[in-house]
Amino acid sequence: MTRPTVGILGGGQLARMLALAGAPLGLRFLVMDTASDACASQFAPLRVGDYRDEAVLAEFAAKIDVATFDFENVPAESAEWLSARVPVFPNPRALAVAQDRLAEKTLFRELDIPVPAFATVDTREELDRALASVGVPCILKTRRLGYDGKGQFRIRSAGDAEAAWQALGPQAAGVGLIVEAFVPFERELSVVAVRGRDGEFRTWPLTANWHVDGVLSASLAPARVDAELAATAVAHARRLAERLDYVGVFALELFCRGGELLANEMAPRVHNSGHWTIEGAETSQFQNHLRAVLGLPLGSTAMRGHACMLNWIGQMPDPAAVLGQAGGHWHDYGKEPRAGRKVGHATLRADTPGALAEALERVGRALDRDAQVAPPVAALRD
Amino acid sequence: MTRPTVGILGGGQLARMLALAGAPLGLRFLVMDTASDACASQFAPLRVGDYRDEAVLAEFAAKIDVATFDFENVPAESAEWLSARVPVFPNPRALAVAQDRLAEKTLFRELDIPVPAFATVDTREELDRALASVGVPCILKTRRLGYDGKGQFRIRSAGDAEAAWQALGPQAAGVGLIVEAFVPFERELSVVAVRGRDGEFRTWPLTANWHVDGVLSASLAPARVDAELAATAVAHARRLAERLDYVGVFALELFCRGGELLANEMAPRVHNSGHWTIEGAETSQFQNHLRAVLGLPLGSTAMRGHACMLNWIGQMPDPAAVLGQAGGHWHDYGKEPRAGRKVGHATLRADTPGALAEALERVGRALDRDAQVAPPVAALRD
Ligand SMILES: Nc1ncnc2c1ncn2[C@@H]1O[C@H](COP(=O)(O)OP(=O)(O)OP(=O)(O)O)[C@@H](O)[C@H]1O
Ligand SMILES: Nc1ncnc2c1ncn2[C@@H]1O[C@H](COP(=O)(O)OP(=O)(O)OP(=O)(O)O)[C@@H](O)[C@H]1O
Repeated sequence: MTRPTVGILGGGQLARMLALAGAPLGLRFLVMDTASDACASQFAPLRVGDYRDEAVLAEFAAKIDVATFDFENVPAESAEWLSARVPVFPNPRALAVAQDRLAEKTLFRELDIPVPAFATVDTREELDRALASVGVPCILKTRRLGYDGKGQFRIRSAGDAEAAWQALGPQAAGVGLIVEAFVPFERELSVVAVRGRDGEFRTWPLTANWHVDGVLSASLAPARVDAELAATAVAHARRLAERLDYVGVFALELFCRGGELLANEMAPRVHNSGHWTIEGAETSQFQNHLRAVLGLPLGSTAMRGHACMLNWIGQMPDPAAVLGQAGGHWHDYGKEPRAGRKVGHATLRADTPGALAEALERVGRALDRDAQVAPPVAALRD
Repeated sequence: MTRPTVGILGGGQLARMLALAGAPLGLRFLVMDTASDACASQFAPLRVGDYRDEAVLAEFAAKIDVATFDFENVPAESAEWLSARVPVFPNPRALAVAQDRLAEKTLFRELDIPVPAFATVDTREELDRALASVGVPCILKTRRLGYDGKGQFRIRSAGDAEAAWQALGPQAAGVGLIVEAFVPFERELSVVAVRGRDGEFRTWPLTANWHVDGVLSASLAPARVDAELAATAVAHARRLAERLDYVGVFALELFCRGGELLANEMAPRVHNSGHWTIEGAETSQFQNHLRAVLGLPLGSTAMRGHACMLNWIGQMPDPAAVLGQAGGHWHDYGKEPRAGRKVGHATLRADTPGALAEALERVGRALDRDAQVAPPVAALRD
């Protein structure tokens, strides 16, 4: 296969950026999505269909040489079914583990990756028992199908149990529920890593992340962490990748508190906290994911200076303020505006922390988004 | 027009790389080409048609917000016709000048940009007179429609005149002919420059170029030149852009001999000697061309370390040797192999000249292309 066709399950911005990064490798793409206006379809052929429809999957499989994901909530059985026909990376087991907060946290523990206290919850009574064992404050989450902070209920005291059960109890039988101790973290970090078919493993510099209402708002790289902490984070990611025989890019999301790391979750795909790698690293997460999936040599993950990614949620701001900065880069996913939707991002890159902080402040002022830029600016000035 | 559609006349690798660079800006594209397998069509919708067909042009114009070129030999009248309907950048006059070696060299002279001696030739007798005035060695070239060294005949002595006339005389009436003094240059350089709608002007660092059989083989940036020479080259490009009210990216190709610059030609489009900017500069020539054409702020043209582009002519080599280098980047245009055809390129980037020279040597050895990498390696080691 000199110029393979890569099938991507899910046709959102991640598939779109994968296609753009893969074009220079001579790749062709076929994207599958349930929505006919999936934004990747502006730059890659799209097959609209249900991931559970075997006829659609069979047609998809016949047209591709290898399959990967833009979306981790593809039914694990569909991934399994496909993998009997074409190579699928990451492998369906890795996908299945990452889809389920219980399986994921259980594996983390097995691998000596510390996690917040947790307990599964199938009934109202189990919720009370979980609160007693895990303690409050804590968070009740769906085990499967959560994203962008959806399917979560914050429990501040035992008195919130009933409201939490009202909100999520009906989902206990379907996707399952889990209670996790609330971590009063100082920082959130992510390791974006890639592992090749031959086991080669690389990480980009650690990234610091800030969420607003459960959705990523800003990412800053390199995160200022001491070498030992960074080495621990990378070692966690490597153990995880090796145990899962993972191929491709993934992110390990970590809470950092008092110099300790607690794993929150892994994302079995290119990750929003790695978008800065497009301009900020020698090789982007998108290109390296494809190199890994195709068995090509991985590219350098070395970074260039300092980079900050700002997510645009709901609608795109005016690009001029960002494009007017020396290292200002714009990413409009071509989507229609919609409340809560990730419609684009900007990356600002600079050679020094000071220059990056100043560019962020200018952008924050111009777009009236001082609150969004404040946390990375503070981290850069620290 | 929040998300304009950019029409591109010509659907080759330049259009392809423009579309890939424009996607993050939220742009849509429509490419027009005479060939149904034009390689840009893998990532942008294609309208197949003749550039002189007004019905096709009218349909094209109706679907786009602004037009630009991947190909400078679009008939100037077609560009004129289009420009009465949609904004066209660069403007048709700039295109017309750049299409004609006589108009181009005449303008260069007017702007005090030194050029090799030249004379136009319409008849066999004029050829003899031109040889007497210009001197030998010289080159007989078609005035229009030449590219990649096609339409040229090298005249070593007056005795070659008859053979030159046999080869190109039949084209005198159609595209016109010109004789240019042969310049025994030490180096070839290019200035890749961009000018915005508001007149803002930027250049990337000067690039050194090596041709084989009239076709670009390798480009190295930054070219090692003294500051005065670089300033002269940039001033030439700026005068040219201002006189033509040029909007977008263009390249000015220069011969360098004994510390003097002689202009060879200008290319009114993104240029092969600027491909290294994709990974080697903060903003690529492709993205800045689109920013200029759309009236958006231009991005920084600052470069990162040292970069060398190697052209792949005829067929693609094995990518592994390039992808295995820390700063190795691959560009397969998705074309079928064909003798003499530009099918792709590689860019190697490194922080130091020494590291880049070593990476080039490794690639040269692995691909059995020592001759191709030798000139940039020698320049880096100089
Ligand atoms: N146990 C916790 N303690 C403190 N904060 C938490 C906890 N769990 C989640 N959060 C906050 O909510 C954010 C989103 O939570 P989580 O990663 O579980 O959700 P998700 O829906 O899977 O999100 P994503 O789509 O970003 O992966 C976290 O990044 C963190 O800011
Ligand atoms: N007058 C000259 N003296 C010496 N060498 C020349 C001269 N003209 C052309 N050449 C050589 O031939 C190459 C191609 O020539 P030229 O740029 O005129 O052709 P072209 O067909 O327009 O090429 P391109 O497609 O690269 O723009 C030059 O880069 C140079 O190496």
